[in-house]
Amino acid sequence: MRLSKKLIGVTLASTLAVGSLGLTSLDREEAEAKKDPKVKNVIVLVKDGVSSTTTTLSRWYKGEDLAMDQMASGGVRTYSAESAVTDSAPAGTAMATGNKTNDKFVGVLPEKIASPGVDEDLADDPYRPVTNVLEGAKLNGKATGLISTSEIQHATPAAFSSHAEHRQQYDNIAEQQVYQNIDVVLGGGKDSLENGNREDGENLLDVIGDKGYDFVENREDLLDSKSKKIWGSFAPAALAYDMDREVTQPEEPTLADMTKKSIQTLSKDKDGFFLFVEGSKPDWAAHANDPVGMISDTLSFDDAVKEALDFAKKDKHTMVIAVSDHGNSGISIGNENTDSSYPSTPVSAYVDPLKEAKMTLEGAMSQLNQDGSNRLEVAELYGITNPTNEEKAAITDSENLEGTLVDLLAQRANLGFTTGGHTGEDLFLYSYGPGKPSGMIENTDIAHSVADAMGFKLDKLSKNMFIEAEEAFGKWGEVSIDSSDAANPVLVVDKGRKKAEFPVNKNIVIVNDREYELDSVTVQSGGKFYVSKDAVKLVKKAK
Amino acid sequence: MRLSKKLIGVTLASTLAVGSLGLTSLDREEAEAKKDPKVKNVIVLVKDGVSSTTTTLSRWYKGEDLAMDQMASGGVRTYSAESAVTDSAPAGTAMATGNKTNDKFVGVLPEKIASPGVDEDLADDPYRPVTNVLEGAKLNGKATGLISTSEIQHATPAAFSSHAEHRQQYDNIAEQQVYQNIDVVLGGGKDSLENGNREDGENLLDVIGDKGYDFVENREDLLDSKSKKIWGSFAPAALAYDMDREVTQPEEPTLADMTKKSIQTLSKDKDGFFLFVEGSKPDWAAHANDPVGMISDTLSFDDAVKEALDFAKKDKHTMVIAVSDHGNSGISIGNENTDSSYPSTPVSAYVDPLKEAKMTLEGAMSQLNQDGSNRLEVAELYGITNPTNEEKAAITDSENLEGTLVDLLAQRANLGFTTGGHTGEDLFLYSYGPGKPSGMIENTDIAHSVADAMGFKLDKLSKNMFIEAEEAFGKWGEVSIDSSDAANPVLVVDKGRKKAEFPVNKNIVIVNDREYELDSVTVQSGGKFYVSKDAVKLVKKAK
Repeated sequence: MRLSKKLIGVTLASTLAVGSLGLTSLDREEAEAKKDPKVKNVIVLVKDGVSSTTTTLSRWYKGEDLAMDQMASGGVRTYSAESAVTDSAPAGTAMATGNKTNDKFVGVLPEKIASPGVDEDLADDPYRPVTNVLEGAKLNGKATGLISTSEIQHATPAAFSSHAEHRQQYDNIAEQQVYQNIDVVLGGGKDSLENGNREDGENLLDVIGDKGYDFVENREDLLDSKSKKIWGSFAPAALAYDMDREVTQPEEPTLADMTKKSIQTLSKDKDGFFLFVEGSKPDWAAHANDPVGMISDTLSFDDAVKEALDFAKKDKHTMVIAVSDHGNSGISIGNENTDSSYPSTPVSAYVDPLKEAKMTLEGAMSQLNQDGSNRLEVAELYGITNPTNEEKAAITDSENLEGTLVDLLAQRANLGFTTGGHTGEDLFLYSYGPGKPSGMIENTDIAHSVADAMGFKLDKLSKNMFIEAEEAFGKWGEVSIDSSDAANPVLVVDKGRKKAEFPVNKNIVIVNDREYELDSVTVQSGGKFYVSKDAVKLVKKAK
Repeated sequence: MRLSKKLIGVTLASTLAVGSLGLTSLDREEAEAKKDPKVKNVIVLVKDGVSSTTTTLSRWYKGEDLAMDQMASGGVRTYSAESAVTDSAPAGTAMATGNKTNDKFVGVLPEKIASPGVDEDLADDPYRPVTNVLEGAKLNGKATGLISTSEIQHATPAAFSSHAEHRQQYDNIAEQQVYQNIDVVLGGGKDSLENGNREDGENLLDVIGDKGYDFVENREDLLDSKSKKIWGSFAPAALAYDMDREVTQPEEPTLADMTKKSIQTLSKDKDGFFLFVEGSKPDWAAHANDPVGMISDTLSFDDAVKEALDFAKKDKHTMVIAVSDHGNSGISIGNENTDSSYPSTPVSAYVDPLKEAKMTLEGAMSQLNQDGSNRLEVAELYGITNPTNEEKAAITDSENLEGTLVDLLAQRANLGFTTGGHTGEDLFLYSYGPGKPSGMIENTDIAHSVADAMGFKLDKLSKNMFIEAEEAFGKWGEVSIDSSDAANPVLVVDKGRKKAEFPVNKNIVIVNDREYELDSVTVQSGGKFYVSKDAVKLVKKAK
């Protein structure tokens, strides 16, 4: 059963979202010229925590142009509802739902507005779930896919597929993802699917099987799959860095593998598809100030962009958007070493020291003996080859080996870092195809551009998809929450002989012991349950 | 006398330069759609040394969108022929002439290639002058203008108006600028125009007067001028920072004043105009890690962009390009203070401490007593209000007061810096109007886009404008350099009864004591003299 097009008020996009900032008349003409009702597929790719410097450095490292370079089309403002520098959860929520929100919030509205220019009304209904573009695509009959190199429950993929008060609610996020009926889900995070690790005692692996997914756990099985529904879970938590894979996790697919396979699978749907892809780990490397990891997974991200772009070029009805969700680490090409010498310091002075590294920081550290006796070998793996006596002493005496290694490499490679946290600068927008956004836009504009291209309005969908239970049923029956199993709360609506039960995080309602499948999941957020207009109708009509 | 259109081989641009990187077919279609033979005017604005972070921070400081925000259209790669991180001279040369070059080089070809992807052949003829877009515009009958807040002889405006082996050759640069017949020249650098400061004993102020310029030295006279030719020299060296002007140099015009007046003046030319505008001093502030100065002059630059954009929107035949020539300082919004707290740190935590400052670092330091007794007052001017005891001690005891002040302010404002030098990240491209470049481009593509829009090819012009003297005249007469006045070398061509003399840096040839004006200046570079094809013809024909 699907919400009918009439119900959810789908209209063909009448306007193009091309940024909230002032647009020139010429820009509007361009936008009009690009407007094409024939957008069939949308692919959104996010490189988590990649500053402009990281991309530039990655290009030099690779020695040739990036796929992204073909798509640069403007900039993105990334701040959250409360902060100048966003974390991934509010950034993901902005790009997926079109709403700036608070730290930790995934797919729900903020409770606190502190950023200039963000409407204070947005905090009038804190924690209310809001529809994301993947849900919108699904309601419009499109196939959907979700990919990350992190746990698939991590903040950014979570924001494109679920609703949670806190990004760390992996149990809730995983359950919603499983019950979202996404066609292709590929990434890490198997831990959150398995019974032993979940507070609610659910075995989501069984559910995945019951739902007809081809469940795969390595590259070969993924590439061999002929199924229209694939769930790939390639690691308990995150996948390896691209650079380390061959040594540490040779059976894992690359991000490009996952992207290509997803496109092949999803593009069989006549109605088109929406695919979300995250290169998750440049962010983690940046937190550690590890340029090797940053480059490794920025380049593997770019390989995934190339898959998307190659498909879009052939297809001609696919919009591709690639962005970073925020800066990270304050990395710069040039540091105090180059204060005066920068005008004559060649590219090789930055890149060659990095090329000495055989593994990322994570990869090299994974090779450390328990007794730490092979510190110099680990350092060599990380590019500190032929160490000076001073470097040797630093490595041997270090009480924070990771910190010492990245400091030494940054010195060798003339790179600067200012923080182990995120940064707040505008970032490049990369976009391609009909209806693409361009210019200097807000991260929230990405969601609206995607929705417009696929022919729906997120605000309208949210109103129909997430109605607070008391509001939905209060005048009709008695609404209560059955928390007898604390990890599995159930919304109960009682009306005489009719009783409806909505288990949390599932697309299911049970009316008088008969189970019905819904088109969207039931969400509990801020203590309240939210159900869809469709579900309300169904319950009222059911016998 | 002008080089005829036939002579210099002007053709209508048959292709649009839209970046050297791979372009999608859709991008090409867009580019074709934007192609408009009716581009009449071009305005190029450079914000020197402004990283993306600086622009973002400036926007937060201002509290509203920037004019630039309306024009974001891609990115620019800034590296020089030899280095990953460019200095202003090669960056200016790239944007003005379409050629990557070496450090210090102004408008001349490199001798050393070290950057991957730069054709080694480019170094085959080191120090050879190459035509800049202002010269090209002039040859095509357009009015021209040159503006900076630095000395007008500084690297970037120099690259758009002159040719020198070294950016510090202010004497040569100033002389060429004066003899270029630019219609409007506004900025600082009066020192290099005055006899007492010049090694060659020339008084360029007299020349400026002889050439019919209205010479103005303050805002009021500038705005009152009715002349078609204006030379404004508002300071011995650089103009004040925008934020300091009212206190330190209240008679100086703003960058927006200069831009608006130039547009008003130049737009009277029926053939259109080319205008170059530099906001020079964000770079200097960045070198000092002074965010106040960086913001001050990024915002004043944006005001100038607004003037250009407002004109272009009305005019509809004006291309506007705004770019930064390179990053500087590794500034980040977020530093070690925000390693963990960034997701909930509001905009005010970064901006409010900066707003305490009443002057830039330069401005505040200019208020320091000779005996240094008012250090705390100077610090307060710079925003270190209500200093803690620790801050007081740091200020009082500092042996590098500037360094201490910027460190204290960065701590208060949660900003990071990695270097006192430039940085190498890709930067935003801002462009507007018909024929505008977009996507990820090389800095050299800016020159080619401008040339294409105005209907000429820089390479062709260079071949006709700068012919090495021996090559030009060697088969015809005897070529020598008269260096009897070392600071005023003269190229001498002797052919029996005919003797031609080309004084360096001037658009003049004297044939048998009769003076002729040329359309371009005679340049000595790398020990060689370069003359135009036009000049050669003239000398051979002259009686």
